[in-house]
Amino acid sequence: MTDSMTETQATTVKVGLQDRGYDIVIGDGLLATTGARLNKLLPGVRTAIVTDENVAALHLETLRHGLSEAGIDSTVFAVAAGEASKSFETLQQTVDAILATRLERGDVVLALGGGVVGDLAGFAAGIVRRGMNFVQVPTSLLAQVDSSVGGKTGINVAQGKNLVGVFHQPKLVLADTKVLDTLPLREFRAGYAEMAKYGLIDQPDFFAWLEANWRAIFSGGPERIEAVARSCKAKADVVARDEREAGDRALLNLGHTFGHALEAATGYDGRRLVHGEGVSIGMAMAHRFSVRLNQCSMDDADRLESHLKAVGLPHRMADIPGELPMPEALLDYIMQDKKVTRGTLTFILTRGIGKSYIAKDVAASEVLTFLNESRSQ
Amino acid sequence: MTDSMTETQATTVKVGLQDRGYDIVIGDGLLATTGARLNKLLPGVRTAIVTDENVAALHLETLRHGLSEAGIDSTVFAVAAGEASKSFETLQQTVDAILATRLERGDVVLALGGGVVGDLAGFAAGIVRRGMNFVQVPTSLLAQVDSSVGGKTGINVAQGKNLVGVFHQPKLVLADTKVLDTLPLREFRAGYAEMAKYGLIDQPDFFAWLEANWRAIFSGGPERIEAVARSCKAKADVVARDEREAGDRALLNLGHTFGHALEAATGYDGRRLVHGEGVSIGMAMAHRFSVRLNQCSMDDADRLESHLKAVGLPHRMADIPGELPMPEALLDYIMQDKKVTRGTLTFILTRGIGKSYIAKDVAASEVLTFLNESRSQ
Repeated sequence: MTDSMTETQATTVKVGLQDRGYDIVIGDGLLATTGARLNKLLPGVRTAIVTDENVAALHLETLRHGLSEAGIDSTVFAVAAGEASKSFETLQQTVDAILATRLERGDVVLALGGGVVGDLAGFAAGIVRRGMNFVQVPTSLLAQVDSSVGGKTGINVAQGKNLVGVFHQPKLVLADTKVLDTLPLREFRAGYAEMAKYGLIDQPDFFAWLEANWRAIFSGGPERIEAVARSCKAKADVVARDEREAGDRALLNLGHTFGHALEAATGYDGRRLVHGEGVSIGMAMAHRFSVRLNQCSMDDADRLESHLKAVGLPHRMADIPGELPMPEALLDYIMQDKKVTRGTLTFILTRGIGKSYIAKDVAASEVLTFLNESRSQ
Repeated sequence: MTDSMTETQATTVKVGLQDRGYDIVIGDGLLATTGARLNKLLPGVRTAIVTDENVAALHLETLRHGLSEAGIDSTVFAVAAGEASKSFETLQQTVDAILATRLERGDVVLALGGGVVGDLAGFAAGIVRRGMNFVQVPTSLLAQVDSSVGGKTGINVAQGKNLVGVFHQPKLVLADTKVLDTLPLREFRAGYAEMAKYGLIDQPDFFAWLEANWRAIFSGGPERIEAVARSCKAKADVVARDEREAGDRALLNLGHTFGHALEAATGYDGRRLVHGEGVSIGMAMAHRFSVRLNQCSMDDADRLESHLKAVGLPHRMADIPGELPMPEALLDYIMQDKKVTRGTLTFILTRGIGKSYIAKDVAASEVLTFLNESRSQ
């Protein structure tokens, strides 16, 4: 477990948020160096590690060994793996566990895990003593390129996902690309969808680079590190421009309006559809919908679908196993999505690969017609 | 209930926090004007009112009548009156109630009540959709001069009071000084202690003015409005300098270290000691302790005690009915207080009336000796 003490390569991306700015460090074998890096950034701190049982079994020993070598005390609170841990109940347990350690405001809550652990631990860190220091050590590709960057935290409630939470920026994000080797292929692909999203939003060159290099990214090595770093940079730039999603940050929701509706429609059953797969289908649908609205060329929509197919990602509603609700019901899920502003339907549309934009007045009837067409494909 | 539609007088204090800045409006009869003011500030919003059962019985009708006249939809969620509502359970219920209204991020959570309601509703507003608009309509003196200003929100947990919460600034604070007529005298006095605190921190002139005018403040009229406004201004200035309590804001804890320990030691039993009374005793003790450390003259400590006595506030531990724990146990409560930074004991001490300062390295043994002496007085 502790054989990766020496980094092969590390890249740093800076998130520019003035006094809340921080570094995202990306590279193979970073996990073991967490202690040393923490000591440098926040001398004398103690840490409360929040993780899940699966990740703990794989990576906790390496992390704690490094912390201990750096003289940093740590406690561990492990939640059950899976989305169900993003609940009020688990939040309260996590808060209690952090308070039980008697850590102070300046000490660190450290999230070791994927998006669920990061969102939960970040929320807890954001509310214990009205905000403790927070460090993200994301272990899934999705968390490394998306959820660990930008300060969004939260839990799910009966009314919907991520409806309760805070913006709480981490002090440091350490993305160890080596730990991605332990991910199941399906989960890696799901994270890859968010990576491709950054190309689709406003970086056509990055998308072309992904088309050429995706095999190397899947198999590990310098291309993977570069892909994670470019993704983090893309997200960091958007976050720096619009920390609290008053404007531009909404572009990051490309593919998410359809995607969230499909996740809801499948009852968040990860056997049928995981988040990144929903985003993959959602991005393809956003391009098709843009074609329908005469915004995007058919060629660009086809090009995206070809790439998603090549990497093994779903791109149509029909790719989801089992029955889906009728289009009217899907539209209802879309209307309930939290990105609805004052009753008008906001969508991320596109004028082609790398040319996404925010459309604020999309008619519900257009969406419904499109859903009806998509269903029969 | 709705006979106070016309304001006699209104003063505005600005809280200077750049994009998070807001107005505190103070005056007799403001409650009925809430709707009109909201409409001007945030046109088209809907509101979810959070209140408690006691306050609802007295003031809800006036508020809702004004909202309705301004064409503003409102829903009401009333919690049980009292500190017990600052719990995880009630927080979750409040969050659920807000989400059930389907309000959007830009809509308003409105707190109508004292400190408990404000802290609870503000916390809920701070985490629903990662932060909704929030408006404070404080109905107790304590809330008007202290807790409604500055953005601190929170709940209590087994480990201590206010240990879980967020900083979430309101968009507007409306302090209707007329509603203070409905307060029991004991509660008004408790709020007055926080008012006196601002004089003691750094405004000796204000303290002298309070000594001369406290009777008029208690009986209502322009002096009361002026006293609330000057208090809000004092707090707003400190908050603007140090929103997240990294430095100067700690001065607002004058009297609170001893005060919190006494509240904890009496099991937060409001029949024995309410928060403002704890602060009153705590401020007197902070002055005595400063005399002991040769920082403050005996005359100034005596002058403060005379004033507290004159208005009917307690100033000694012996003023608390019932038994208190031994000094060692009180010291433990102090050490557990959340203002402890990295193990060193931080105290707000004073060099005299209006000359408070932050002392970062107070020896626990000095505190213990002082507590032993105070006990026998």
